[in-house]
Amino acid sequence: MNLDRCSVNQMTVRQLGLPDLVAHCVRLGVPAVGLWREPVRAYGVEAAAALVRDAGLTVSTLCRGGFFTSAGWQEANRAAIDEAAALGTDTLVLVSGGLPTGSRDLAAARARIADGVAALAPYAGDHGVRLAIEPLHPMFAADRCAVSTLDQALDIAEGFPPEQVGVVVDTYHLWWDDRAPSAVARAAATGRIHSFQLADWTTPLPAGVLNGRAQLGTGSIDLTAWSKLLDDVGYTGPIEVELFNEELWSRDGAQLLEQTVKAFLTL
Amino acid sequence: MNLDRCSVNQMTVRQLGLPDLVAHCVRLGVPAVGLWREPVRAYGVEAAAALVRDAGLTVSTLCRGGFFTSAGWQEANRAAIDEAAALGTDTLVLVSGGLPTGSRDLAAARARIADGVAALAPYAGDHGVRLAIEPLHPMFAADRCAVSTLDQALDIAEGFPPEQVGVVVDTYHLWWDDRAPSAVARAAATGRIHSFQLADWTTPLPAGVLNGRAQLGTGSIDLTAWSKLLDDVGYTGPIEVELFNEELWSRDGAQLLEQTVKAFLTL
Repeated sequence: MNLDRCSVNQMTVRQLGLPDLVAHCVRLGVPAVGLWREPVRAYGVEAAAALVRDAGLTVSTLCRGGFFTSAGWQEANRAAIDEAAALGTDTLVLVSGGLPTGSRDLAAARARIADGVAALAPYAGDHGVRLAIEPLHPMFAADRCAVSTLDQALDIAEGFPPEQVGVVVDTYHLWWDDRAPSAVARAAATGRIHSFQLADWTTPLPAGVLNGRAQLGTGSIDLTAWSKLLDDVGYTGPIEVELFNEELWSRDGAQLLEQTVKAFLTL
Repeated sequence: MNLDRCSVNQMTVRQLGLPDLVAHCVRLGVPAVGLWREPVRAYGVEAAAALVRDAGLTVSTLCRGGFFTSAGWQEANRAAIDEAAALGTDTLVLVSGGLPTGSRDLAAARARIADGVAALAPYAGDHGVRLAIEPLHPMFAADRCAVSTLDQALDIAEGFPPEQVGVVVDTYHLWWDDRAPSAVARAAATGRIHSFQLADWTTPLPAGVLNGRAQLGTGSIDLTAWSKLLDDVGYTGPIEVELFNEELWSRDGAQLLEQTVKAFLTL
């Protein structure tokens, strides 16, 4: 794939501080980064915005808003939208939250998520930020995200203009779903693919399953077919590599970034 | 729930030998057991059949056939059907297999599974055994079962008479899916619910994720709603408790069985 489309998510090389991430992306010709709220806030939002902007990099996404089924979601999400606007990114990724404590009602959790998106969408639009609902793999339905399929995400997103609400297409979360290709076409038809993220799937999954997102090309997902699918529906935005992997995080960050770029180009 | 409908899968209390499992089920009034091929073969198929039959217990299912994407599946599955017939159960559970080594083509894996079922279905029917395709949670798509939803399982099963091929409805694998209730109705409409299995979902998932099947009532799944759903579509067969859980397996087997029966009755 063409490096012009590449974005490296900050978590992929979380062992690198923000200045090192930026410097190595510039050195390697990576034009964009995906950022996370916690390290950005630790560095300072304005300082981070200046650092990235002065290096000529684009911020493809900010992760993450959401968690609509937890207390305090309103304030947290308005702050996340403000930070996205300050960083100059047009996309805030939403990890929507799982079951509220003590609840077993997934349908009710999904309704709460839809209500939360409705409450935020105009505010996001006013700040030039698109909310991108990310369906997470069904193994996260209880504790992280009750939105488990791209169709579910679109059922919520389509209630709003695409410049306010869209979706994330993440290979790791969707690769198993035989209905995902038609849902990708559905998302593209109304201009709602606000982010395309790549990670590969390897087994055995680690305990807690969060940090099983593997290096491109090392796992079970036909990432080339996914890239072609997104091409075919007319998606021309960034392709963001987002890996969470303890073994990769234990390596030298600069080398990991080089290896990741190489894996991206090999697809 | 009524104990008349209860079946305890052998793996739930795998620390119990087959004679102890049978004796404790009789003592507690559990009328049926689900068996696994490996411990049954270790005990002797005919001896196991006699033990269970003489105790007046029913064998609700034999686990498992399948793994159609691995070498040797033909012989292994014919043997599994023979063993099911010898044990007097009408249902062989199929765990269909994941991606073949080196493949990233889920659609091709699913096609191989459909071909495998087609090759076995008449043989099963001739032996009075129904093949029950079990959709496994999408987190198992790569390594255990490329059939991830009940609709996918039905797409295969509906090519055959229901007395040859049906499906397993397992709460652990299906609970996240908003399309599962309509698929359950679809399965019932043609008499294809050949097994209904219960386990609860807890997080964090253990490494490898296989042994996260938790005691009824301790997790995120609304098992009462699932039981009602199966009632509503007219399912009147066994309700089988199948837990895989290292912590539960470390306990005293007889006490675990008692606790499991109590949890079943509490639903």
